[in-house]
Amino acid sequence: MNSLEEPDGSPSVVGPLDPLVVPRYAGPSTFARLPTRDEVSSYDVAILGVPFDSGTTYRTGARFGPAAVRQASRLLRPFHPTLGVRPFQVQQVVDAGDIACTPFSISQAFEQITTEAARVVADGARFLCIGGDHSISLPLIRACSSRHGKLGFIHFDAHLDTFDSYFGEKYAHGSPFRRAVEEGLLDTTRCMHVGIRGPVYDESDFSEDVNLGFSTITTDDIWKHGMSETIEGVRNIALNGAIYVSVDIDVLDPSAAPGTGTPEAGGLLSRELLALIQSLRGSKVVGADVVEVNPAFDHAEMTAISASRIIYDLLCVFAPGQT
Amino acid sequence: MNSLEEPDGSPSVVGPLDPLVVPRYAGPSTFARLPTRDEVSSYDVAILGVPFDSGTTYRTGARFGPAAVRQASRLLRPFHPTLGVRPFQVQQVVDAGDIACTPFSISQAFEQITTEAARVVADGARFLCIGGDHSISLPLIRACSSRHGKLGFIHFDAHLDTFDSYFGEKYAHGSPFRRAVEEGLLDTTRCMHVGIRGPVYDESDFSEDVNLGFSTITTDDIWKHGMSETIEGVRNIALNGAIYVSVDIDVLDPSAAPGTGTPEAGGLLSRELLALIQSLRGSKVVGADVVEVNPAFDHAEMTAISASRIIYDLLCVFAPGQT
Amino acid sequence: MNSLEEPDGSPSVVGPLDPLVVPRYAGPSTFARLPTRDEVSSYDVAILGVPFDSGTTYRTGARFGPAAVRQASRLLRPFHPTLGVRPFQVQQVVDAGDIACTPFSISQAFEQITTEAARVVADGARFLCIGGDHSISLPLIRACSSRHGKLGFIHFDAHLDTFDSYFGEKYAHGSPFRRAVEEGLLDTTRCMHVGIRGPVYDESDFSEDVNLGFSTITTDDIWKHGMSETIEGVRNIALNGAIYVSVDIDVLDPSAAPGTGTPEAGGLLSRELLALIQSLRGSKVVGADVVEVNPAFDHAEMTAISASRIIYDLLCVFAPGQT
Amino acid sequence: MNSLEEPDGSPSVVGPLDPLVVPRYAGPSTFARLPTRDEVSSYDVAILGVPFDSGTTYRTGARFGPAAVRQASRLLRPFHPTLGVRPFQVQQVVDAGDIACTPFSISQAFEQITTEAARVVADGARFLCIGGDHSISLPLIRACSSRHGKLGFIHFDAHLDTFDSYFGEKYAHGSPFRRAVEEGLLDTTRCMHVGIRGPVYDESDFSEDVNLGFSTITTDDIWKHGMSETIEGVRNIALNGAIYVSVDIDVLDPSAAPGTGTPEAGGLLSRELLALIQSLRGSKVVGADVVEVNPAFDHAEMTAISASRIIYDLLCVFAPGQT
Amino acid sequence: MNSLEEPDGSPSVVGPLDPLVVPRYAGPSTFARLPTRDEVSSYDVAILGVPFDSGTTYRTGARFGPAAVRQASRLLRPFHPTLGVRPFQVQQVVDAGDIACTPFSISQAFEQITTEAARVVADGARFLCIGGDHSISLPLIRACSSRHGKLGFIHFDAHLDTFDSYFGEKYAHGSPFRRAVEEGLLDTTRCMHVGIRGPVYDESDFSEDVNLGFSTITTDDIWKHGMSETIEGVRNIALNGAIYVSVDIDVLDPSAAPGTGTPEAGGLLSRELLALIQSLRGSKVVGADVVEVNPAFDHAEMTAISASRIIYDLLCVFAPGQT
Amino acid sequence: MNSLEEPDGSPSVVGPLDPLVVPRYAGPSTFARLPTRDEVSSYDVAILGVPFDSGTTYRTGARFGPAAVRQASRLLRPFHPTLGVRPFQVQQVVDAGDIACTPFSISQAFEQITTEAARVVADGARFLCIGGDHSISLPLIRACSSRHGKLGFIHFDAHLDTFDSYFGEKYAHGSPFRRAVEEGLLDTTRCMHVGIRGPVYDESDFSEDVNLGFSTITTDDIWKHGMSETIEGVRNIALNGAIYVSVDIDVLDPSAAPGTGTPEAGGLLSRELLALIQSLRGSKVVGADVVEVNPAFDHAEMTAISASRIIYDLLCVFAPGQT
Repeated sequence: MNSLEEPDGSPSVVGPLDPLVVPRYAGPSTFARLPTRDEVSSYDVAILGVPFDSGTTYRTGARFGPAAVRQASRLLRPFHPTLGVRPFQVQQVVDAGDIACTPFSISQAFEQITTEAARVVADGARFLCIGGDHSISLPLIRACSSRHGKLGFIHFDAHLDTFDSYFGEKYAHGSPFRRAVEEGLLDTTRCMHVGIRGPVYDESDFSEDVNLGFSTITTDDIWKHGMSETIEGVRNIALNGAIYVSVDIDVLDPSAAPGTGTPEAGGLLSRELLALIQSLRGSKVVGADVVEVNPAFDHAEMTAISASRIIYDLLCVFAPGQT
Repeated sequence: MNSLEEPDGSPSVVGPLDPLVVPRYAGPSTFARLPTRDEVSSYDVAILGVPFDSGTTYRTGARFGPAAVRQASRLLRPFHPTLGVRPFQVQQVVDAGDIACTPFSISQAFEQITTEAARVVADGARFLCIGGDHSISLPLIRACSSRHGKLGFIHFDAHLDTFDSYFGEKYAHGSPFRRAVEEGLLDTTRCMHVGIRGPVYDESDFSEDVNLGFSTITTDDIWKHGMSETIEGVRNIALNGAIYVSVDIDVLDPSAAPGTGTPEAGGLLSRELLALIQSLRGSKVVGADVVEVNPAFDHAEMTAISASRIIYDLLCVFAPGQT
Repeated sequence: MNSLEEPDGSPSVVGPLDPLVVPRYAGPSTFARLPTRDEVSSYDVAILGVPFDSGTTYRTGARFGPAAVRQASRLLRPFHPTLGVRPFQVQQVVDAGDIACTPFSISQAFEQITTEAARVVADGARFLCIGGDHSISLPLIRACSSRHGKLGFIHFDAHLDTFDSYFGEKYAHGSPFRRAVEEGLLDTTRCMHVGIRGPVYDESDFSEDVNLGFSTITTDDIWKHGMSETIEGVRNIALNGAIYVSVDIDVLDPSAAPGTGTPEAGGLLSRELLALIQSLRGSKVVGADVVEVNPAFDHAEMTAISASRIIYDLLCVFAPGQT
Repeated sequence: MNSLEEPDGSPSVVGPLDPLVVPRYAGPSTFARLPTRDEVSSYDVAILGVPFDSGTTYRTGARFGPAAVRQASRLLRPFHPTLGVRPFQVQQVVDAGDIACTPFSISQAFEQITTEAARVVADGARFLCIGGDHSISLPLIRACSSRHGKLGFIHFDAHLDTFDSYFGEKYAHGSPFRRAVEEGLLDTTRCMHVGIRGPVYDESDFSEDVNLGFSTITTDDIWKHGMSETIEGVRNIALNGAIYVSVDIDVLDPSAAPGTGTPEAGGLLSRELLALIQSLRGSKVVGADVVEVNPAFDHAEMTAISASRIIYDLLCVFAPGQT
Repeated sequence: MNSLEEPDGSPSVVGPLDPLVVPRYAGPSTFARLPTRDEVSSYDVAILGVPFDSGTTYRTGARFGPAAVRQASRLLRPFHPTLGVRPFQVQQVVDAGDIACTPFSISQAFEQITTEAARVVADGARFLCIGGDHSISLPLIRACSSRHGKLGFIHFDAHLDTFDSYFGEKYAHGSPFRRAVEEGLLDTTRCMHVGIRGPVYDESDFSEDVNLGFSTITTDDIWKHGMSETIEGVRNIALNGAIYVSVDIDVLDPSAAPGTGTPEAGGLLSRELLALIQSLRGSKVVGADVVEVNPAFDHAEMTAISASRIIYDLLCVFAPGQT
Repeated sequence: MNSLEEPDGSPSVVGPLDPLVVPRYAGPSTFARLPTRDEVSSYDVAILGVPFDSGTTYRTGARFGPAAVRQASRLLRPFHPTLGVRPFQVQQVVDAGDIACTPFSISQAFEQITTEAARVVADGARFLCIGGDHSISLPLIRACSSRHGKLGFIHFDAHLDTFDSYFGEKYAHGSPFRRAVEEGLLDTTRCMHVGIRGPVYDESDFSEDVNLGFSTITTDDIWKHGMSETIEGVRNIALNGAIYVSVDIDVLDPSAAPGTGTPEAGGLLSRELLALIQSLRGSKVVGADVVEVNPAFDHAEMTAISASRIIYDLLCVFAPGQT
């Protein structure tokens, strides 16, 4: 383990393995080869895997997402030049492993997820979870909201995920954010979808979403108004209080993220998504997830590499320091 | 549609599309390009897809199995030279489509599966189902047994599938046949596993299985005693009354069936499995399934092609005529 | 089948299967799980597969394109928010299956294709065909032109496809539109290529193309002038009379459409192509095709999903109603 | 180029590049990195690519077979221990490149193929061709027979390939050997199929094949009688005069040869096929082909590596010397 | 961690994670989800990754082998029914992580490998290493021999790996065992290759190998004499003293192990290799490695799953207890 | 071979094979099916493969890059419409094969590479090399600089490649350009990186790079300032004297170039890179390389096709004539 000692003698942070000592393709499969929770005395941010895909309506397989994203994260390096942040040095990040949750009961799994996520919150730390399908956002938001109250919400996704139910199931991966509003977990004056596109069930999908309190920046909006205006719109929501960030990897174009469950043509380039994530720097993110990586459909780790980079940039957003 | 008229004027059977009229890569995606149930006046055998994988403990994705096996079945031809059977001519086979079942409730899905399978039985026909994960065998056996009483049972699989429960769930894909015995659906004097291999949880997996009434031919037995003796052992069980046949594609070696959820090294070659299936000719099969084809892990349709051929050979076993 | 009944009691339209009744991964493999021609009393638009690749000069395999695009179309939903159109409700769309055509004779196959396409035209309907290699556009345009006379023509492609011949063959996939002009099927005052790029045989490829009557918007033009101007250019051609639209999937960048026969670097993003297709709304499209999807080279259905979405957006262009 | 000089000063043979000088992954893409025809003064055996797949009824793509097999042949080494033969030293083998033939006319392509193959025969050498689909065997046999008269014939394949016609085409890849008999090219007292299996169109497929003069060893025969008896059966045909050998790679099981056009479950292991090829040592092979390698469906060059090894073992059979 | 307590109060062993508590697709990526060295007080067997591929002459990439084999080992269960052994209960097995070794100097890497392996030996334990290319066997044998003296040697491989040098390099993956003999590490009265096949550079490859002291069972021998005789031959060598076992995954047929660097047609089925490994039960194995898994060429983890199973069976061979 | 004869009787140039005589999928595997050095009397530009990947720190495999890029180059056509150049007609381009270099010694391989590259320079020609990993640029620049003195340098890459050393190795693929500066090979007033992005080891990576004399256009700069300004920046460096151009394919986004060793999200689209390459027209390029194509991770030749096109556009830059 690579102890990053502060010159002033302050408590050192344990960072990733040094690639000049252990090659990147070697060593443990923790995220970015960071320490586990047991290997440090305290921590600020916990990477948590949530290998759960029983809320999936089309291609199952996101239960293997956490393992794939960790393997792809071996390439991450310590300094983010665009943001000027050393995310593994200015805060103690740990890989807290996977949440063990049953694949056979959504409600029981949600309890397991909330319990484990709440444990991080109880430790005074924040979590950044790797899905798993998008249904896991609900139990994660529950854990976050129990500490922080109603949360602002920035949601990157091709789909609204405020559908009501599917085959009678109200907790599948198309409905978590309707539930979150219904449960009073979100501050509906500060909830935004970004990257929405593609055909929907009906016009009412949008009107009901508006009624729930969400604002939306579609990809049509982005192409029309440009990235600067989009970033401004996002920051208007993001900078005014605690927020939760949820990134469905299918917000990326299928060319950049083939390894996902319900791909939708016409999505963001990874550079666009990264710029949007980076624009969150300065906001108070109290929890986040990156979901719907399905490695069975990935190629050459392309999707998992992007997901690991999104997590890295979110860790930079989490990092203390001026913006 | 290709009407196969009998010279004596008896009611004709509708067979697969003629490949000299419509190339094999063209035409409908029904199994072997057979007619649907609506396109014939009556039928003897229904191919039914059961796209359900919510009982899966490792790699999900078998919900796409029925579509993949149908696509791979385009290559099947009308006459089986080893058995001397024309399975699409001596009986009316139809593709009865997929059973619509919810992915979110095993119990509800089982009811849907039993209901649809029972509809085929009520029509006086037999079904041959394409899974789906192995949990679906239980609701299918329920449908079969409600008509035929306790069933003999021939089970080709790498795994016993008589485990008790997993994460508290008693109806996942590792336990259907324990449940079937507990529910009194099987004639435990005539139940056999074939192809079992690989590490298990404990020695008691086998002893409990014996206590349930199953006999087992492991792959070790097959390599030791040879195919002739194996066939004899299978036929001893199979020929003495109505049987249900269940084929988990992972009975094949991973080299022959990579597209499955829990591959196990050291399995059967496809020629060995086909010989075993063919040995059932003469038995009274009242229902069957071929399960655990997971196309996300398949290559060049290799697994699905074998599955479609297994179904074809089972259709030959179903066919009337001398043996 | 999901009957979409009109409140005023007018004849109802049969739309796609309801995914809340039959999951998207289940049910028939018709395009978007729409009804077949036999399942409705009349129809406005026929989706027709043309599984023919004998006009191919490099990677063969597009004969499997129709099956792959249909499988990928399971994800399509009923309402297009950008255009505000419900393409399956305001017109009766059917999947009319595949045109059975011989792989061994281009001329005989062309007759078969024209005959079947003309049958749709004779029914007073329009067709939207799934290729197949690009040679099929010629027999399709013949069928269309026989009813509508000289057609305007919008052609999305990396390649001009007005080459003269290849190995002496005048009807291969690089020459259909030279033939179409020679046969007098196109209104050469309204013919445009969009998305052309990459090295060509000679400078004369372009000059001869101009002489045939085509105007061209290259990708160089698009990057230089922007999407708005490009759209304006396309609409200038498209809005002044009946047009035929042909989309070669290789107009997309290989990153977005790897599953094709002659990929060319530097292509359109799927969002750009969709915007161009959407810009055709308001034009009078009398026939269309989407060709050159070759699933053997696709990954995770990425190419086929884009193709299915292009067809969907074309169906929205076909749809009656204000623009 | 590596000159293999004979100690007695006899004309030297030019063998493959020396892997200790040029690594196997480097250097030219000729078969086994052998010289071209231009690089030697005379030659005994010519490897010829026949990139033609217009006779294909299912998966096209074998036109890329020759390039794939050559790339896979880089691993071949100079000495065959089982046979005790140095195939590149005791005879001059060259890579004579590809036969340029049109994809748009079977008859014209056949003329081109026969002409180029006959050029090898006229040089007093023998050819070993890499397909391409199986239709190419007919023009190759024509070239061979024009010199050697009626030929004995050993045919390794899952399919008989003596079908009459397909869509009216008499020269597709399912019929070459019916044509060869009709044209009087084969000595029907010495024609044998080996490895036949799987469903056929009708019982008459076999009876007509027998009437044409073929004997058959099915895979059923092989499993029943064993390899020794099979080898004896093959050698009874092979050793009594000039023979032509044709190997359809689909004689192998799909697990060993996924990269082919019409895979059939239950095939030979590569060790079994190699043993059968080796059993031809001592026979007078006057021409041979290895066909139906379709790299778009291959994985990790598995099929192409086997094909290159089959060619290597055939070169050992071609080699002069005691048997 | 799952403590397997002995009823007699003896020190408990820590086994794999319980899959009924943490699903197999979740939890750490240690081999079989076993504890690390830090998590136990002492250990008997260390699984060690050796991610090194700089000795490779053809397809590089085996440096990713250890990570892939660990991921594939999630499916392993605790009890081996054929051998009647609980390999994780009767001995403390740990995953000791990867040996950090430079990719840029074979000699320096060998020192690093020997040092780390010797540390295990110094702990009084045995190692079972996951490669990496085959060159790593030499430094591993050095570590083993320094403790145990001259070692008997059982070597499963398609290739002899007693070549002298390649491009002047004497320590590449084709020569480790010539070096081991030259260094006096092996007891040349008890050294055996099993599974050798395919073309070689020259006849002298074999004669020199014999001169070094190796005996060989080729695949030709196996097919000729059968598995029983092969097993007897192996056991004759294996049972008479301490042995080192080295398994090159390319001893398997490419159909079963595509993910490797120099695949050779005609190899063993996984069931055959497993039977041979199992036959070592009763021998005194003092060290072992499984090498040449190259995941970039694997499909659906097929190769890695077999490798993880081979390791499992070797662990059963390592296990104390009657045989 | 297709002789491109000049009308004035001047020495003709031998261009690529004519695809109307030999189909593109047939014929030799030289780059663009160009002649070899032996087949022409003199040449202007040599395409040279450098199959070397022993300088790789993550995914090995680029040693197969040259073969893959050549295979993908079959699609290239003779005329570049954007630049108005016929690169194969206005200069004699040959495929000079691969440089044979040892995989086991970086220093020895570098000598072999410099020697072979210098041979081209000594012939009065220029080389365009296909990697291989990026370490090969150093020996290539040595060869170039020995003739042309200090070189300007345009470097397209996601990474700076001016790291100091890795595991003590100063000549791996992350450091060639630091070495080139240290060796005095580059004119540090005219050295530029283009496309740099992603996390780095430390802030000092950039400051040290500046101190070495490099200027940098990051992808952040490109998105901020646009392509026109980027092109202007590149041309300011490129047009003022002899330059060497090095293209690491990972400058492209992973969606466009998955087949590479250290993919980095957020990269260039192929159209953007091609525009930048084209902007070099008019500069005096005295040598170039395109490196880090790793076909084991490519899909459908996507990466190799882009690489072959980049080489083609560089050949247009090399071509004599007005700009």
